[in-house]
Amino acid sequence: MTNPFFKNHGPFKIKKIFDIINNNSQLKKENYKIYDIKDLTLSTSKDITFFHSKKYSNVASITKASFCITTDSLKHFLPPTCSPIIVENVLLSLSLITKAFYPDSINDDFDNTVKEIAKTNFNKKTRHGNNILIGKNVKIGKNCSIGHNTIIEKNVIIGNNCSIGSNVIIRNTIIKDNVFILDGCVIGKKGFGFFPNNKLNIRYPQIGIVLIEDNSEIGCGSTIDRGSISNTVIGKNTFLDNQIHIAHNVKIGNNCIIAGQVGFAGSSIISDNVMIGGQAGISGHIKVGNKVQIGGGSGVIKDIEDNSKVMGYPAKDLRQFIKQNK
Amino acid sequence: MTNPFFKNHGPFKIKKIFDIINNNSQLKKENYKIYDIKDLTLSTSKDITFFHSKKYSNVASITKASFCITTDSLKHFLPPTCSPIIVENVLLSLSLITKAFYPDSINDDFDNTVKEIAKTNFNKKTRHGNNILIGKNVKIGKNCSIGHNTIIEKNVIIGNNCSIGSNVIIRNTIIKDNVFILDGCVIGKKGFGFFPNNKLNIRYPQIGIVLIEDNSEIGCGSTIDRGSISNTVIGKNTFLDNQIHIAHNVKIGNNCIIAGQVGFAGSSIISDNVMIGGQAGISGHIKVGNKVQIGGGSGVIKDIEDNSKVMGYPAKDLRQFIKQNK
Amino acid sequence: MTNPFFKNHGPFKIKKIFDIINNNSQLKKENYKIYDIKDLTLSTSKDITFFHSKKYSNVASITKASFCITTDSLKHFLPPTCSPIIVENVLLSLSLITKAFYPDSINDDFDNTVKEIAKTNFNKKTRHGNNILIGKNVKIGKNCSIGHNTIIEKNVIIGNNCSIGSNVIIRNTIIKDNVFILDGCVIGKKGFGFFPNNKLNIRYPQIGIVLIEDNSEIGCGSTIDRGSISNTVIGKNTFLDNQIHIAHNVKIGNNCIIAGQVGFAGSSIISDNVMIGGQAGISGHIKVGNKVQIGGGSGVIKDIEDNSKVMGYPAKDLRQFIKQNK
Repeated sequence: MTNPFFKNHGPFKIKKIFDIINNNSQLKKENYKIYDIKDLTLSTSKDITFFHSKKYSNVASITKASFCITTDSLKHFLPPTCSPIIVENVLLSLSLITKAFYPDSINDDFDNTVKEIAKTNFNKKTRHGNNILIGKNVKIGKNCSIGHNTIIEKNVIIGNNCSIGSNVIIRNTIIKDNVFILDGCVIGKKGFGFFPNNKLNIRYPQIGIVLIEDNSEIGCGSTIDRGSISNTVIGKNTFLDNQIHIAHNVKIGNNCIIAGQVGFAGSSIISDNVMIGGQAGISGHIKVGNKVQIGGGSGVIKDIEDNSKVMGYPAKDLRQFIKQNK
Repeated sequence: MTNPFFKNHGPFKIKKIFDIINNNSQLKKENYKIYDIKDLTLSTSKDITFFHSKKYSNVASITKASFCITTDSLKHFLPPTCSPIIVENVLLSLSLITKAFYPDSINDDFDNTVKEIAKTNFNKKTRHGNNILIGKNVKIGKNCSIGHNTIIEKNVIIGNNCSIGSNVIIRNTIIKDNVFILDGCVIGKKGFGFFPNNKLNIRYPQIGIVLIEDNSEIGCGSTIDRGSISNTVIGKNTFLDNQIHIAHNVKIGNNCIIAGQVGFAGSSIISDNVMIGGQAGISGHIKVGNKVQIGGGSGVIKDIEDNSKVMGYPAKDLRQFIKQNK
Repeated sequence: MTNPFFKNHGPFKIKKIFDIINNNSQLKKENYKIYDIKDLTLSTSKDITFFHSKKYSNVASITKASFCITTDSLKHFLPPTCSPIIVENVLLSLSLITKAFYPDSINDDFDNTVKEIAKTNFNKKTRHGNNILIGKNVKIGKNCSIGHNTIIEKNVIIGNNCSIGSNVIIRNTIIKDNVFILDGCVIGKKGFGFFPNNKLNIRYPQIGIVLIEDNSEIGCGSTIDRGSISNTVIGKNTFLDNQIHIAHNVKIGNNCIIAGQVGFAGSSIISDNVMIGGQAGISGHIKVGNKVQIGGGSGVIKDIEDNSKVMGYPAKDLRQFIKQNK
C-alpha cells in the first residue's frame, strides 16, 4: 500500500540513505534503489526496514526488506536476504530516513486545501451542518451526517452510514462503514514522538494513519493519534466512551468496550472482546489478550493473558485485588 | 413532566408493547393504553416502568406504574396495582420499548434546525460572539453571554445571568440561573449505553436530559452526558474544574467542589457539600454521602457514608490510607 | 511589569484598602498610595502583598512591599519596611483587594473585541485557515501558522515560527518562539479558584497569565489555566502530550516530557528535565526536583528530590514500588 496521506519523496539509492544517517561503512549494492521505509512485516524487497528490540526477533527473521537498520547485537536475527545496516541509535536513524522520504509528516499545520462544504459536491450528497470544511481528495460514502464546524482534512476517506459530530477534526484517517465519531474528537494528529534533546527536541516523523473499522463509536472529546510508522487501528464494533486518549500505533481489536477517560500509551495491542473500566491506563508496547476485563482505574504495565480479569495499580488478578483490599 | 426533547410516539396499547418485546404470555387488560415509559419513582398509572435489581425494591414496592417489566424473582416486591411483565433481560426489553416511544433518542446527529444567531431574536437579547448557532425552540433568559462558535441545539432552556463560553455544544439540557459553562464543553450528548452484541452492539435509547441548577460552574472541556431514562443532574452552587467526565444518570448535589479530570461512571449519586480531588474516579451505581471528602486520584468503588474522608484506590478511610502509606 | 491583560483600576490610598477589607485598626500612613497587589517576591515599595503560610517565610522576610496582609502568627517574619495588616482570612482579603484593582478578572466572558482575521493585518502576515478570530492588540511574530476556527483573544502575544492548531482558544497568554499549540487546546482561562460559600461561592480574581517559553509543544485538547496572582509557566523545550490539565500558578521547567492525561493541581513547581508518565497526577503546592522521573498513573502528593525515580499512588521510590508489587 502506498501511503495515502504523505507524499513519498523517494526512491533513494542506498548510498544516499547511508549519507542521510552519516554511515561511512562499506557498501556493496550502492545504487540499489529503496522505494519506501516500512516496518518489518510490511516491507518488500524494495524497502528498508528497522529492528531495534529483541521483542521483534520473530518477525525480523522473516522480513522481506532488502536492508534493515539495526544494531550489532540484533543483526543475526535477520534473514540472509536482508542486509543489516549497523547504527548506534536505530530510532534516530529511522527518524532521519523517514524525514527524507516524507518531509511533510513532521509538522501538523492546518490543511490549507479545505473548502467550505457548500462549494464541494458533498453539499448535496451528505446531510451536514454549518461551517464545515472539506480538504482535497476527501471521499465520503453514502448516507453520512456531518455536524457543525467540523473539519475533514485532505485525503480522509469515510465509508457509508457514518455519523460525524460537531467540532470534530479528522486528518490522516480512513473510516469504514457505520462509524460514529462524536463531538469534539481530534482524530489523526501526529503522535507524541520525538527524541529528547536539550534545548530543541527532534520531532519524529509520523507517517502512519488512523484506521477505524466498521460499526465503531468514538466518544466526545477523544483524541486518537495516527501511527508513526505502522497504523493506529480501532477494530470493528468497538465502542469508546468520552475523553479517551489513544497514542500512536495502538491497535484495539473487535467488540471492545472502553469506558471514559481511559488512556493508551503508544504501540500497545488490545485484542478482541476486551472490556476496560473508566480511567484505566494501558502502558506502551504491551499486549492485552482476548476477552480480558480490566477494572476501572487500573494501571496495566505488563502483558495480560486471554480471559483474565484484572484490577489495580499495577493491575493484578481481580480476585487477588479484592482479597487484598477487603 | 412530558419529555422536553424527544417526541413521544405513544400511547401504545399494552398488547402492542407485548409484541414489541416478543412476549406471548396471557394478558388481561390488552387494550389498556400506556402513555410513557418512566422509572419506578416517576411513573403514574398511565405508564410502564422497569425493575431489574433488588437494590431498588423499596421504590418498586410503592411504584404507581400499572405495568412493570421485571424478572420472576423480583416481581413479588411490586404493589398489587402494578402488573409484572416477566422477561429474561429487563434492560434489553426496556430498550426495545423505549425505542418504540422515542425513536429519535438513539442517534445524536447534529441539529439541523439551527440558525445563525444573527437571524434569531437572541441577536439583540444576549451578549454574544461570532458564528453562534441556535436551534428551534431554544429559550435563553436575561443578561446571558454566549461565546464564539457555540452551538445551542433545539429545545435547550437557559436561565438568567448565564455565561456560556466559546466552542461549547449544548443539547437536551436545562440550565437554571447564574450558571457558567466554560469553553469547549459538550453537554447533553447520549450516554455510553448499549447492549454488547457481537458484530453490532444494540444502542440503548437515551431519553433523559441534563439539568444544571443555579449558580453552578462547569470547567473547560468537560463532558456531561444526558440521562438514559432518568436525568443527569448538577446541583446548586456546585463547581466543576476542567476536563471532567459525567456519565448518564449521575446526580451531583449542592455545594460540591470537583477538581480537574475527575470521572463519574453512570447512575452514581453524589450528595451535598462533597469535595473531590483531581483525577478521582467514582464507580457506577454507588452513593457518596453528604460532606464527604475524597482525595485526589482516589477510586471510589462502594458507597461512602456521610462526613467521611476517604482516599486511595480503592478508596478507604483517609487516616488508614495515610497510616498504610507512611 | 504592569499586568498586560487586566486594567489596573488603582492606585488606591491605603485607607481605601482598609475599607475594602473592613479593617478598622489604626493606621499611620493612611494616604500612602498603593499601585498594585503582587506576590511577596514581585512586590515593590509601591505594592501591597500577602503572606498566608509559613512555607513562604523565607521570601516574606525579604519582601519589598510596603504593606502585607497576613495573620498575627506570621507577621514577625516580615521585614521592618513592610507593615503587616492583620486579617482573619488572608486569601479572602486578598480576593477583595484584587477585585478592587482588577474588576474584569473574575468572569471570563468571550472577547467582544475580536475581528475576523481577514479584516486584520494578520491576513497577509500569517499562514492561516478559515473562520479565525483575533482580538484587539494581539501581536503575532513572523512565520506563524494558525488553524481553522481558532480564537486568539485580545492582548495575546505570540512569537515567531509558532504553529497554532485548529479550534484553539487562547487568552491572557504570552507565547514565545517556535511553540506548537495543537488542536482544541484552551489556554489562559481563569483558574479553579474561589472561596466555598453556601449557596453562592465567591470567585477569586485570576489576574495572572500563562507564559509558554520557546520550543515547547502543547498536545491536543489540553487546558492550561492562567495564574491567579502569579503566572502559570511552561518552560523551554517542554513537550506536553494530549489531554493534559494544568491548573493556575503551576510552573513547569525546561526540557520536560509530560505524557497524555497528566494533571497538575494549582501552584505546583516542576523543575527541569522532568519526565512524567501518562495519567499521573501532581498535587497542589508541591515541588518536583530536577531530572525526576515519575511513572505513569502515579499520584505525587509530596515534594520529590532531584534525580529521583518514583512511581505509585502515593508515589514512592521506584525500586520500592517494583519490589512491593512483584
